[in-house]
Amino acid sequence: VGEEVARRTGARVAVVVTVPVLARRYAPVALRSLRAAGLRAHRVVVPDGDASKSLARVRQLYEVLLDLGVDRSGVLVALGGGMVGDLTGFAAATFLRGIPFVQIPTTLLAMVDASVGGKVGVNLPRGKNLVGAFHQPRLVWIDLATLGTLPLRQRAAGLAEVVKKAAAFDARLFERLEAEAGDVLALAQGPLLAAVERACAIKAEVVRRDEREGEAGVRRLLNFGHTLAHAVETLTGYRRVLHGEAVAMGMVHAARRSEDLAVAPAGTAARLEALLRRIGLPTELPRFPRRAYLAALRVDKKRRDARIDYIVPRGIGSATSVPLTPAEILPARWRRRPAEGCLGSEPMGARGR
Amino acid sequence: VGEEVARRTGARVAVVVTVPVLARRYAPVALRSLRAAGLRAHRVVVPDGDASKSLARVRQLYEVLLDLGVDRSGVLVALGGGMVGDLTGFAAATFLRGIPFVQIPTTLLAMVDASVGGKVGVNLPRGKNLVGAFHQPRLVWIDLATLGTLPLRQRAAGLAEVVKKAAAFDARLFERLEAEAGDVLALAQGPLLAAVERACAIKAEVVRRDEREGEAGVRRLLNFGHTLAHAVETLTGYRRVLHGEAVAMGMVHAARRSEDLAVAPAGTAARLEALLRRIGLPTELPRFPRRAYLAALRVDKKRRDARIDYIVPRGIGSATSVPLTPAEILPARWRRRPAEGCLGSEPMGARGR
Repeated sequence: VGEEVARRTGARVAVVVTVPVLARRYAPVALRSLRAAGLRAHRVVVPDGDASKSLARVRQLYEVLLDLGVDRSGVLVALGGGMVGDLTGFAAATFLRGIPFVQIPTTLLAMVDASVGGKVGVNLPRGKNLVGAFHQPRLVWIDLATLGTLPLRQRAAGLAEVVKKAAAFDARLFERLEAEAGDVLALAQGPLLAAVERACAIKAEVVRRDEREGEAGVRRLLNFGHTLAHAVETLTGYRRVLHGEAVAMGMVHAARRSEDLAVAPAGTAARLEALLRRIGLPTELPRFPRRAYLAALRVDKKRRDARIDYIVPRGIGSATSVPLTPAEILPARWRRRPAEGCLGSEPMGARGR
Repeated sequence: VGEEVARRTGARVAVVVTVPVLARRYAPVALRSLRAAGLRAHRVVVPDGDASKSLARVRQLYEVLLDLGVDRSGVLVALGGGMVGDLTGFAAATFLRGIPFVQIPTTLLAMVDASVGGKVGVNLPRGKNLVGAFHQPRLVWIDLATLGTLPLRQRAAGLAEVVKKAAAFDARLFERLEAEAGDVLALAQGPLLAAVERACAIKAEVVRRDEREGEAGVRRLLNFGHTLAHAVETLTGYRRVLHGEAVAMGMVHAARRSEDLAVAPAGTAARLEALLRRIGLPTELPRFPRRAYLAALRVDKKRRDARIDYIVPRGIGSATSVPLTPAEILPARWRRRPAEGCLGSEPMGARGR
């Protein structure tokens, strides 16, 4: 990775930002490689967990960069999952009005989603990702070997974002996943590489066409499954449910609504649900009262009935945006299906974490 | 201004950020105009002075924006000088990954320089403008009437940036200033409008060609006078000397060095100095020891003799970059001229602030 960082950034000094377990496991290799390529290389360790995605932590990074004498000839290297990438990317976007940064994602979710596209940022006490920027990495360096130590549940959650891209953009990838999801989960090199490559290529192409998520742009289609996923995450306090799991629930709900609205042909939701369940992902929304969901969906609190650009499939491999009010997204009798596999009937704790 | 903000941003809610004196003097007019154009409009007052250009203040602005329910359909309006513009622009650049902002500069310096070009940011305890972004305003709204209450010394300091652009890019503007600088300072509408318009047009054209200040780009030529200006500001603790005054000193020194290096023809520095002195600007560096200046110039503390892209005139109306070490920028016998008008011989306090 050192040679490639040197070639793509021309940097003289690299600061690798990572979390404790990766600092022990992979940072030494990365630092050696960077030094072999002629860079001064340093390591900064931030605590694990989303609490590190904060302005306080960004300010600490600035101080470290000043201590190390980093200027525009420096590069920040994010070694870790989405939190590390978002935090490091935001520091890189704003230090000295922007210095280069490189992503080395070590989770499947970060590989296929967060590391590509340039969305970086931190949370405020009142909400996630409220502060941020668009800052493209000079390089996304993916080493599939880092997935070897990723728990199965995390792999499944990461695969949810691959399914999302397939369902929204690429029917052939969806078919491939139907055939090979088990192999991908088991980290069989061929199927894993194919899935990660294709997911990254889709994301890169979407971002190339619509970097800033314009109102009529294609990038917002990547929010497929995310409207309700955010509501689930809010209601569960970002515990219990992993992001990819929440996205799986949100996608299935959106597909069912899409069939109801006659936007997607019958069977779309069932096919999506079948794939997600084979991966081991939950597909039913946790049993909170409807009014709790509606409150969580109302982003613009002053306009209770404001429409949301709700992303729904038009079938497998294609998605579109439908402006719906929260009450239309979750109509009164939305929970008409038996709630198998959802949080209510089968506590996720039982699945062995 | 309300109509224009509505037209350029499509915003539904505007938050005007300003300082106490302007909150009383101009904010009511701006708010009325914004409301007349159909926007919800709010006002946020930050304390005067560069101390407000801080991460703590940015975080406060985020909180206010959340309180007011501002989303991407909002616009921030910076009503004030450079501090207000930089702070507000940085908040706009980073809140929700970027929302629109508008500049209403009320000082000559902000009108002709800071409000155009998209450089926004805040200070860290260890240095100025260490954190920031490039975020172009959707609109720069200049009302020359706001200069009526600006002290003469501030007007002169603002005019230094007009002289800089003339000296570096536009010989005709320089000639015009030689003829009309007094009228501009006295706020005669014709000459004032012409000078502000031309200065903004030059800045906008430079930024259009080289927004991010690329290494070989034209934008760095705007740093003419600024290398030593920053050193002067560091040594004087950002008190006593206004930014434009420091730039005036820096430009004259650079012009003299340029003649020494045979880059500019003889007489260039004298002509520049004559204009600046007629405006009432200081042209000699304050009497700090040479080693203090050299220390302040060494940005890269680990490479004491690293070269700096020093911007010098090639004559009136044209500038270039010369890579010089700090010791070459300030050679041993640099203070060979009598130090009239400098801080040492004539304390600036005597000039009646």
